[in-house]
Amino acid sequence: MSNKPAFAVVLSGCGVYDGAEIHEAVLTLLAIDRLGGSYACFAPDAPQHHVINHLTGQESPEKRNILTESARIARGKIEPLSAFDAAQFDALVFPGGFGAAKNLCSFAFDGPDCKVDPDVEKAVISMHAAGKPIGALCIAPALIVRLLKGALVTIGNDPGTAQAIEKMGGTHQVRTHGEVVVDHALKLATSPCYMLDATIGQIAQGAENTIKTLMGMIR
Amino acid sequence: MSNKPAFAVVLSGCGVYDGAEIHEAVLTLLAIDRLGGSYACFAPDAPQHHVINHLTGQESPEKRNILTESARIARGKIEPLSAFDAAQFDALVFPGGFGAAKNLCSFAFDGPDCKVDPDVEKAVISMHAAGKPIGALCIAPALIVRLLKGALVTIGNDPGTAQAIEKMGGTHQVRTHGEVVVDHALKLATSPCYMLDATIGQIAQGAENTIKTLMGMIR
Repeated sequence: MSNKPAFAVVLSGCGVYDGAEIHEAVLTLLAIDRLGGSYACFAPDAPQHHVINHLTGQESPEKRNILTESARIARGKIEPLSAFDAAQFDALVFPGGFGAAKNLCSFAFDGPDCKVDPDVEKAVISMHAAGKPIGALCIAPALIVRLLKGALVTIGNDPGTAQAIEKMGGTHQVRTHGEVVVDHALKLATSPCYMLDATIGQIAQGAENTIKTLMGMIR
Repeated sequence: MSNKPAFAVVLSGCGVYDGAEIHEAVLTLLAIDRLGGSYACFAPDAPQHHVINHLTGQESPEKRNILTESARIARGKIEPLSAFDAAQFDALVFPGGFGAAKNLCSFAFDGPDCKVDPDVEKAVISMHAAGKPIGALCIAPALIVRLLKGALVTIGNDPGTAQAIEKMGGTHQVRTHGEVVVDHALKLATSPCYMLDATIGQIAQGAENTIKTLMGMIR
């Protein structure tokens, strides 16, 4: 057994428009490794909401599976989210991308009335119940707000999304590149990443600051 | 026009087993940004050799396009490699992954007798003719050796691959994590990355050292 802080990273596919945002996912893994943690990747074993051709932005008739596509980012080392056990981990992290709002929950379609995937809900609730910290990048804080009453988060500065966050009972704070909002009571760390028009270096900074914050909240 | 050193990054799909290795690709883009360069992504607009299910390792009956899948890593900002113009760039880089050996050339199947995609060949030859540096990670140095007579490279320490490099007229040097082999005459920088059993932090180091070396070779 390793004494490194153990992070579970929940992916939602592979590609910003229909899955996990690839830069955010990879730079989350890099931050965990560089800051002395270990990681394991998880994703729901379920069909993606849809497939978007990332060259044209058009919907494609293809069918893809969230876990199978997420495995591309994880180089095959990934488990179904149904197998997640909070006892094995010190922190839980959600990179962003539309997959977080289309595959992990229905926020992209239903806004504040969104439903959350049952395995995602179980993972978040069980970590919270165990007093362990949870991080979320980009649009992923929306699903945390849906599950944990009164969460304090940032999704950057988009007024419509901030309003939806508040409608779900959360509190939104405007933040810019690399900045992290910390909810000390609920043990949450969130950062805007590609919810802002960002460079890849700014994404690396946002992921690193989020992971650093989570490290500090691990007992 | 920007005065930043301009890098062209050639992708070969999206996923280590049938496309560009995602960590190597993303960390190449990060290194370019952090070291003060700008980047543009390219990929051949052609069918992938095949599609591998990254969860099971099995071949899938699906058909995917190299450019369309590469667009996932590039967040939609990518051009067909046929549009590449050496006059617009200061350096050319090839991240690795099986895509470099299956889609950009046929090295994975034909070894030293491999054929190289015509647009890849044009890009490499035109940059070389213009006296501009070229970088390659992981298995991608194999295609450089196939195109540029007598290239000095590393692919890490795999004896079979090193032998194939030498059979193509190249010279191979054994290197470990993060190390770069420099061919000063041909202006090449290569690093093993995931040709070794590496952590993501070691990949970041390999990509950064390669880009730093290329920066030093840009006039």
